[in-house]
Amino acid sequence: MNILVIGAAGMVGRKLCDALAKSGDVGGHSIDQLTMADTIAPIAPSSSSIPVLTLASDISRPGTAQALLSDRPQLIYHLAAVVSGEAEADFDKGYRVNLTASQLLFEAVREAGYRPRIVFASSIAVFGVPFPEVIPEDFAPRPLTSYGAQKAMVELLLADFSRRNFLDGIGIRLPTICVRPGKPNQAASSFFSNIIREPLKGEPAILPVTEQIRHWFASPRSAVGFLLHAATIDLDRLGSLRILNMPGVSATVEEMIASLRRLGGPKCVNLILRRPDAMIQKIVDGWPRRLDASRAQILGFRAEKSFDEIILAHIEDESIAR
Amino acid sequence: MNILVIGAAGMVGRKLCDALAKSGDVGGHSIDQLTMADTIAPIAPSSSSIPVLTLASDISRPGTAQALLSDRPQLIYHLAAVVSGEAEADFDKGYRVNLTASQLLFEAVREAGYRPRIVFASSIAVFGVPFPEVIPEDFAPRPLTSYGAQKAMVELLLADFSRRNFLDGIGIRLPTICVRPGKPNQAASSFFSNIIREPLKGEPAILPVTEQIRHWFASPRSAVGFLLHAATIDLDRLGSLRILNMPGVSATVEEMIASLRRLGGPKCVNLILRRPDAMIQKIVDGWPRRLDASRAQILGFRAEKSFDEIILAHIEDESIAR
Repeated sequence: MNILVIGAAGMVGRKLCDALAKSGDVGGHSIDQLTMADTIAPIAPSSSSIPVLTLASDISRPGTAQALLSDRPQLIYHLAAVVSGEAEADFDKGYRVNLTASQLLFEAVREAGYRPRIVFASSIAVFGVPFPEVIPEDFAPRPLTSYGAQKAMVELLLADFSRRNFLDGIGIRLPTICVRPGKPNQAASSFFSNIIREPLKGEPAILPVTEQIRHWFASPRSAVGFLLHAATIDLDRLGSLRILNMPGVSATVEEMIASLRRLGGPKCVNLILRRPDAMIQKIVDGWPRRLDASRAQILGFRAEKSFDEIILAHIEDESIAR
Repeated sequence: MNILVIGAAGMVGRKLCDALAKSGDVGGHSIDQLTMADTIAPIAPSSSSIPVLTLASDISRPGTAQALLSDRPQLIYHLAAVVSGEAEADFDKGYRVNLTASQLLFEAVREAGYRPRIVFASSIAVFGVPFPEVIPEDFAPRPLTSYGAQKAMVELLLADFSRRNFLDGIGIRLPTICVRPGKPNQAASSFFSNIIREPLKGEPAILPVTEQIRHWFASPRSAVGFLLHAATIDLDRLGSLRILNMPGVSATVEEMIASLRRLGGPKCVNLILRRPDAMIQKIVDGWPRRLDASRAQILGFRAEKSFDEIILAHIEDESIAR
């Protein structure tokens, strides 16, 4: 099986490719080649049991997607995206990368005349207030960011192209991924990871919201697990409903901090600096707190069961000294 | 006020322009000019109290929307669409006209740098089974046609452009418009109008589905009423939720026929020929039966209250001899 990962330079894309390269197999199908594409050339996994190709390739440019399909990958991961904050700051770039590039990709697949599995990374950002405490499977996406609008539009496009048998698509709505490794960034959601990751390294981190904020999380390990599981499951069971809420852990900031205390000790917790930021509080107040992910769970998608498990996955996967 | 109607050659567009030209006023604002645009030059109303311009203009061609905005219409009706059957038969044309043209229009408004009211005619075709007997306001659009997918995508786009203050948009999900004047056409929904209109003219009409089929209707008169009402109401009351289910009449085919019997007599009903068509039955089985339109009703949108009223509106508006 040939696999193409678009957006392979991102954090989740890299971890996914590491897992594919390591096992050389996905859902029982052996991998013949893994192609990693992103606007900047992705870094190949340090060890691989299979041939890995890395490409600097921008699918928002007409013709690029066609080239990526020349060896007819049977499995395509579409993870390429401009993140929420950037799509809000640069309206044109957000639509070009998050919407137009997806259209060009799906259109290129249709032109190529075969029917690969496409796994599209959507997001819980498709949901905006007002919504109930637990967002049902059939709740309307009414996004409050351009990023969310773009993801919701691509979900519709993917479902329609799948219905027309031009491709075999599945869209998975990822929870906020936590704990993200690496440096703090400018995303409004950044603090969720910062307040765990930085104290575990002995560094301070800023908490800009109240501890009552509740949100929906899964670890990078779970995100990779979702993507691997989505690769080969039988989608006929989904019928026409090819977009799935992914399972996750619903936790308040208070509960996150309690987990950190249990696993990192009070010295970690003392490194969290409370600096209320009204703007971030307002943004985060509009974010989903809990989703019904029963359909995904029935199909075998699995996330952590507690925030403790999320922190433990981070400690293991990033080899954090305790 | 300058008004631009895109899609003015269609049935609803023509009736809307007739109403605007006749009154010379919309929501208390006097109209300075009405521009009617469509891919074929629309026919101007036979009598008009205001200047009317008709243009053959295809907004799916880059640059066209910019030209239409040159005199900065403060109110833009976007009714242009390839209908459901055609969007299914011609995939490329459906996306070009129903999605790309809308993107080009909204983008042109953003470039023009002013903030007109845009009234977008969406459709209950955004909904596909499974759904509850009464579709709630916040139910997810999961369309089962490309037409529905395109309408749902433009709803998201309109809401996002509105949220960003690039335009002042409202999307209204029209019920199936019944009774459509004119000739039977190839649309799967055509029979709903045919079985009323043709017998009232003394002509036979084919009923391809069972009488238990229930669907959601409004008259052409109500559709025009919705569009006029959407022109000037205060949208701040909508917050970010700028897409509204329009009110309508939920009726079974059996109830429609009973109305026809009351208003046209048994001779009309005897002109309905039962010719079950499994394909049309299957399509129509997937259509909405009833919608919650409370938000629209609170805002003052009004439809008929019974199918008798829908037939009476047809008899009056089309000057049908009884």
